[in-house]
Amino acid sequence: MADWQEISGGVTAPRGYQAAGITAGLKPSGLPDLALIWSNVEAMAAGVFTTSQVKAACVDYCRQRLQAKHSARAILCNAGQANASTGIQGVRDAEESAEILARELNISPESILLASTGVIGQRIKMDALRTGIPKVVAALSETGSDAAAKAIITTDLVKKSIALETTIGDRPVRIGGIAKGSGMIHPNMATMLAFVTCDAAVSSHLWQQMLGRAADKSFNAITVDGDTSTNDSLIALANGQSRTPAITEMGAEAEKLEAMLTALCQHLAKAIARDGEGATCLIEVQVTGAYDEVSARQIAKTIAGSSLVKSAIFGRDPNWGRIAAAAGRAGVNFEQDNLQIKLGDFLLLENGQPVPFDRAAASAYLKQTAADSSLPRDPSNNFSWQRTDNPVIIAVTIGNGHGSGQAWGCDLSYDYVKINAEYTT
Amino acid sequence: MADWQEISGGVTAPRGYQAAGITAGLKPSGLPDLALIWSNVEAMAAGVFTTSQVKAACVDYCRQRLQAKHSARAILCNAGQANASTGIQGVRDAEESAEILARELNISPESILLASTGVIGQRIKMDALRTGIPKVVAALSETGSDAAAKAIITTDLVKKSIALETTIGDRPVRIGGIAKGSGMIHPNMATMLAFVTCDAAVSSHLWQQMLGRAADKSFNAITVDGDTSTNDSLIALANGQSRTPAITEMGAEAEKLEAMLTALCQHLAKAIARDGEGATCLIEVQVTGAYDEVSARQIAKTIAGSSLVKSAIFGRDPNWGRIAAAAGRAGVNFEQDNLQIKLGDFLLLENGQPVPFDRAAASAYLKQTAADSSLPRDPSNNFSWQRTDNPVIIAVTIGNGHGSGQAWGCDLSYDYVKINAEYTT
Repeated sequence: MADWQEISGGVTAPRGYQAAGITAGLKPSGLPDLALIWSNVEAMAAGVFTTSQVKAACVDYCRQRLQAKHSARAILCNAGQANASTGIQGVRDAEESAEILARELNISPESILLASTGVIGQRIKMDALRTGIPKVVAALSETGSDAAAKAIITTDLVKKSIALETTIGDRPVRIGGIAKGSGMIHPNMATMLAFVTCDAAVSSHLWQQMLGRAADKSFNAITVDGDTSTNDSLIALANGQSRTPAITEMGAEAEKLEAMLTALCQHLAKAIARDGEGATCLIEVQVTGAYDEVSARQIAKTIAGSSLVKSAIFGRDPNWGRIAAAAGRAGVNFEQDNLQIKLGDFLLLENGQPVPFDRAAASAYLKQTAADSSLPRDPSNNFSWQRTDNPVIIAVTIGNGHGSGQAWGCDLSYDYVKINAEYTT
Repeated sequence: MADWQEISGGVTAPRGYQAAGITAGLKPSGLPDLALIWSNVEAMAAGVFTTSQVKAACVDYCRQRLQAKHSARAILCNAGQANASTGIQGVRDAEESAEILARELNISPESILLASTGVIGQRIKMDALRTGIPKVVAALSETGSDAAAKAIITTDLVKKSIALETTIGDRPVRIGGIAKGSGMIHPNMATMLAFVTCDAAVSSHLWQQMLGRAADKSFNAITVDGDTSTNDSLIALANGQSRTPAITEMGAEAEKLEAMLTALCQHLAKAIARDGEGATCLIEVQVTGAYDEVSARQIAKTIAGSSLVKSAIFGRDPNWGRIAAAAGRAGVNFEQDNLQIKLGDFLLLENGQPVPFDRAAASAYLKQTAADSSLPRDPSNNFSWQRTDNPVIIAVTIGNGHGSGQAWGCDLSYDYVKINAEYTT
């Protein structure tokens, strides 16, 4: 099937990368809170950022950097303060962070990208950061991915990391990625972050295009509660250290690289959705028969984001009516007489009309899937791996078109409300 | 301020209308489930219907009727079965309902409009309906509005009804309305319905325009959980029985009538939002300083619909960060440095940056507002009036534009999840 294999090592799996994660005293909890990813050589750099009108200083900073220069060597990420809604002082703090790091790494500040996650409206604790930067640089190592993955999370239950390997021109090429979800346990705290490293040699223009398309099929296709953060950032580096032939235009090798990049982003995106606040299972919505991919994804995402569908799944209720209603309001034209809905192997609706099915067995499917994919609740086991390979599957066909698309989400539980209502200021 | 006053009588307050609500045996609960609104003369008829691609037979039926003829004399509404996703048989059931009623009323079926609410995928219980129609016709009365208002609700905690009166050409003109909310306690059950009667003399074209604009500022500006129903219908009749001068083009009198119609629709819409599942308070979001009304409403609705904002209000948490984040992702351009956010009288954000405020007092404001607007929970008091005049106010300014807009929603509580997850099939 897939033309690649999973390997260990996260963002340090590709050649020529080091990473680190340390406790710099930014988070009140005393957990790791400063991460650095470093390429031994200048790497092609691409980014996809929040479309929100209210955005953090680091987002504006990265957009400007990447507009001026399509390469970078380091990504610095602090957790604890989002540095959003912090005005001109927030911008200065971001710039100072880059300058301090540039001096420590002996590179130009233009080669540094920044990300922040934490409480909106709070500036970065600059004293702690100034002390922390030399330490995180000193901690850089070729096995530092896990430490970095832990240092970027805030309220996530598990860390999110993966690496994949394929061959291009008969030589191995690797991609690694770490991510954090949009945990909002703390008031005003939000952010989806993902950092990708790759050792392929690829032109910056193509790399940015690939990343944009991969993001549409992964991070832009997940929804936990519909809320977009001020700090959402996806940054990808490609440093060419695999010494494989340079990919400068679309073709078989570019497609292979893009497919692997997409798979990596989808894994991280699903891991974020699975770890949605209070979620008990991952939901995958597959839409086929649409006019094009965009409309298929739009329907998939509307279903995955429907509070009514999400609460029905939490209630282990094979409620096709809510799925049909969500599909119908997605803003995509279709003939309701063509609508087909499946939940796992259970056909619930065909030709727009209900089909008799074994309701108890369908409910049992939901129960079993959730049980199989339960996250570790033991705090001492906080960072163990999570399963994203057994989602609840909702399959919807809306017609005879060739467009298909997927989206991922999670169920809506009491814990979502508890987490978001009771952790008050 | 307002150029009208509230009067009693609901949809039978305007001249020339009768209404009835009876128990026809459609709802399993044995509660009233068949309503009829009747105009003594042919009335101008306008409608706004669900935009969902999956829609009930009655919605297609009404759209066709109103396309062919812009007037009607009767609205029949059954509660219990939605008659959506019921295929060609559902269409035939709708047509037969109209034919039976036409015979009983001795009018043409072309003068009959239909609405259904209840379980998606279930046909109307036609035997019960056939027996019920003569009874509901026999029950018509000039004081029948309350009975009709009770017969159209499904899982609403309170009935929704209002009537307003103004003068046009020195003579009284009245508008009445009843509505039901999108209660989804029962699986697959949904629908927002509103029926408006008016005794003004107004041209059908103008009446439809007025209703469309009023709907945008009321029913289209509320959100309980973002899910749109297969059956949502707003139908308005204007029968000219006030004997006031005919309104055929926009002008002072048309504006007066439209303003009163808008106020009536806003009252009913707010009542629906307040009665959202599990809600403990009504939330009103006021957006000003936008480029135009449409973008202002879009931001207002995004904030009112944000799960994070809704859970924060349930937690009585003055969480401006979530409000700012929701505003930012609404799809409307603005400068974040111009953003101002107020919660009640508390200024939380100015020039895009947090302002020191009394957090405990702001939380107390939320607690007090919710306490003041609590709904009756005593089943014996099931149908008492509810307050929509003291919402939690979130006021957002995004710039210096002249566009302003409002939206309404409710908070997100444990009960929402409980209602939607635990009432399983």
